[in-house]
Amino acid sequence: MTVEATVVGMARQAKKAARKVAAATTDQKNRVLSSIADKIEIRSVAIQAENRKDIERAREMGISPAMIDRLTITDSTISSMVGGLRDVVALPDPVGEITSTEKRPSGIQVSRVRIPLGVIGMIYESRPNVTIDAAGLCLKAGNAIILRGGSEAFHSNSALAACITDALEQNGLPKEVVQLIPMRDREAVNVLLKQEDFIDVMIPRGGEGLIRFVTANSLIPVLKHYKGVCHVYVDAEADLEKAKAICLNSKVQRPGVCNAMETLLVHKDVAATYLPLVGAAFQEAGVTLKGCPETRKYLPWAEEAVEADWPAEYLDLILAVKVVTSVDEALDHIAAYHSGHTEAIVTTNEATARHFVQEADSSAVMVNASTRFNDGGELGLGAEIGISTSKLHAFGPMGLEELTSRKFVVYGDGQVRQ
Amino acid sequence: MTVEATVVGMARQAKKAARKVAAATTDQKNRVLSSIADKIEIRSVAIQAENRKDIERAREMGISPAMIDRLTITDSTISSMVGGLRDVVALPDPVGEITSTEKRPSGIQVSRVRIPLGVIGMIYESRPNVTIDAAGLCLKAGNAIILRGGSEAFHSNSALAACITDALEQNGLPKEVVQLIPMRDREAVNVLLKQEDFIDVMIPRGGEGLIRFVTANSLIPVLKHYKGVCHVYVDAEADLEKAKAICLNSKVQRPGVCNAMETLLVHKDVAATYLPLVGAAFQEAGVTLKGCPETRKYLPWAEEAVEADWPAEYLDLILAVKVVTSVDEALDHIAAYHSGHTEAIVTTNEATARHFVQEADSSAVMVNASTRFNDGGELGLGAEIGISTSKLHAFGPMGLEELTSRKFVVYGDGQVRQ
Repeated sequence: MTVEATVVGMARQAKKAARKVAAATTDQKNRVLSSIADKIEIRSVAIQAENRKDIERAREMGISPAMIDRLTITDSTISSMVGGLRDVVALPDPVGEITSTEKRPSGIQVSRVRIPLGVIGMIYESRPNVTIDAAGLCLKAGNAIILRGGSEAFHSNSALAACITDALEQNGLPKEVVQLIPMRDREAVNVLLKQEDFIDVMIPRGGEGLIRFVTANSLIPVLKHYKGVCHVYVDAEADLEKAKAICLNSKVQRPGVCNAMETLLVHKDVAATYLPLVGAAFQEAGVTLKGCPETRKYLPWAEEAVEADWPAEYLDLILAVKVVTSVDEALDHIAAYHSGHTEAIVTTNEATARHFVQEADSSAVMVNASTRFNDGGELGLGAEIGISTSKLHAFGPMGLEELTSRKFVVYGDGQVRQ
Repeated sequence: MTVEATVVGMARQAKKAARKVAAATTDQKNRVLSSIADKIEIRSVAIQAENRKDIERAREMGISPAMIDRLTITDSTISSMVGGLRDVVALPDPVGEITSTEKRPSGIQVSRVRIPLGVIGMIYESRPNVTIDAAGLCLKAGNAIILRGGSEAFHSNSALAACITDALEQNGLPKEVVQLIPMRDREAVNVLLKQEDFIDVMIPRGGEGLIRFVTANSLIPVLKHYKGVCHVYVDAEADLEKAKAICLNSKVQRPGVCNAMETLLVHKDVAATYLPLVGAAFQEAGVTLKGCPETRKYLPWAEEAVEADWPAEYLDLILAVKVVTSVDEALDHIAAYHSGHTEAIVTTNEATARHFVQEADSSAVMVNASTRFNDGGELGLGAEIGISTSKLHAFGPMGLEELTSRKFVVYGDGQVRQ
């Protein structure tokens, strides 16, 4: 069978299976999730053996150590996948929730009812655990899913997908509820992105290149996040000790993630005190600073910032630093360079905080808290399938509710429109 | 200036203006809306004179009478635009609504706050009133908007847009909050669809060709509806008099709209009684029927339905009719041919109704009510900017709330992530 015929066939089957999983009870979905977790535990040795095939092939191909690290399924990856599934079992089922109900003047009773999105297409790169994390959340929200993992994780993903398929069948759901594209060809992605009759949403996870490719080529709506260029603004009226703790945590705790700070903005009135204070802490933590001329007056060891530093997502122990003359200059800088992910202000002035919250146009705006709190778990959504930096459908972390839609249900007694 | 430079410049200006209108008070936005309404009334003669230029040009180009009809601004079009604006003034402002708030174990206070989408791009065809209806709703929801109307309505749209621009400036908002693309070139649309850095969502309104073009070429998320292939299923346990009224209303009241019935499904057990009953009424109303062989046993005057009739959106006094053996056969037919718009069941059996509501995968599912109720006004959303038949962001009529997003606002007291 050609790649096209295979992928179109899978999409068609997924749409059929979506009707079954949409109608599944919470209990049935939870049994599937628990069963997947059990199988991953029982088969962990075999899964890791399949994973080693991928690792060997990756080494032969000269793939970078960082990528091999992401590819590797350790004992801790296994526990994290299993624990994640058990957490999703414990989350409330969003499907069927009646979010409003109202009797209209015409006499009809109008309700809005939460429903699954339908079929979700997931395209991701090296980490095989995404196979389990994504399938678990999509399934709990009543969706069918088509997974397209990275070709370098082919054996690992197949072993994990087999746990899902077996769990589905043993619990009375069609195995087509979760399908992994069984081929490495890139052509499969192109075909997948055109199946708008069968697939309701695409969620790409990976580097900016992948996400831009999906956006440019998809006929299906895409939920995406390009990058996290997060700012912390330290106001003239900030508590500087709190500001230091927040800035350090935002930059240093996990510099490789999208909710880490990439640019620090400091009000000129506190620059002379705050920059030496936080600068020493950054220096100790091994952070390279790229400063504006004003910053370098107080931190002469900082490198000179160039225009390319302001929109940069370093994902590393590097930080751009700029002194600004007002909260509005900070907001203008953010408006020009932010990615819509997370912005934070440190201030004791409530009016300034409110102004910043109103104007900063990102999925999460923090007042006196670390940017690292922009995370599904921390914000109360439970697990997340990704963070959206575009405003349509979801803005910020996407949990179970974001994997659903709502339909109108109308009960009448023979009403017709006048 | 080239088309590209003009359109990119407009998009950039729209993004800047979006910050201003997002921060505008409800009162300020309402004053703008009322002022637009006043100006349309005062300038109605001049607007209609501009409209006549478009009509004359359309006649010269040999454009169809139906299209000229859509293009014409009558006195009643004027009152309807003015009335629509005054209705939007009366609707509650969605911006700033706090939809949830929660203290998390970490000590941070997490709220979700409703915000404008930002910049909305609207591409539409002949009806010039869309210029006012769309701008009014987008503006009330705090958005900036770029309008690209049909080239055949160029003079009419420009006259209407001038009312908006003047009202914005007289009420302290930048005129770039609502911009009309000032050129007829099709190239402008291509450029617009690539401005993902400045535009948050595209809403195309018009024929299926336009919408498919926008979907295929946009880098910006699209809110769309292709077509309405709405079904009514008359169950074995239906009240046949109510069924007759509902079917007639669904088909005949306004056959040219997307929530009109296009296919009638009748349970075999009532076909012998119901089809002659409703058939006579349809015949009287001038409806052409396209029936399956079983239908034609009871209605020999019906034409023979062919495969192309089942997915057809006639938008006319034509109806496809099929006899089915069960509610599940009806649901399978709907799953195969529906457009995600509206489905209805007529039944007195509550369990059958619930099953149909659960399984029919459309934006509105009606029990014992006309398909014509799938409308923003009838369902309680106030005015609508369109009906979405894809599940992302909005499914069904899109009112003010659907023209917004939500962001997370976090208040802390120096919290950092552990």
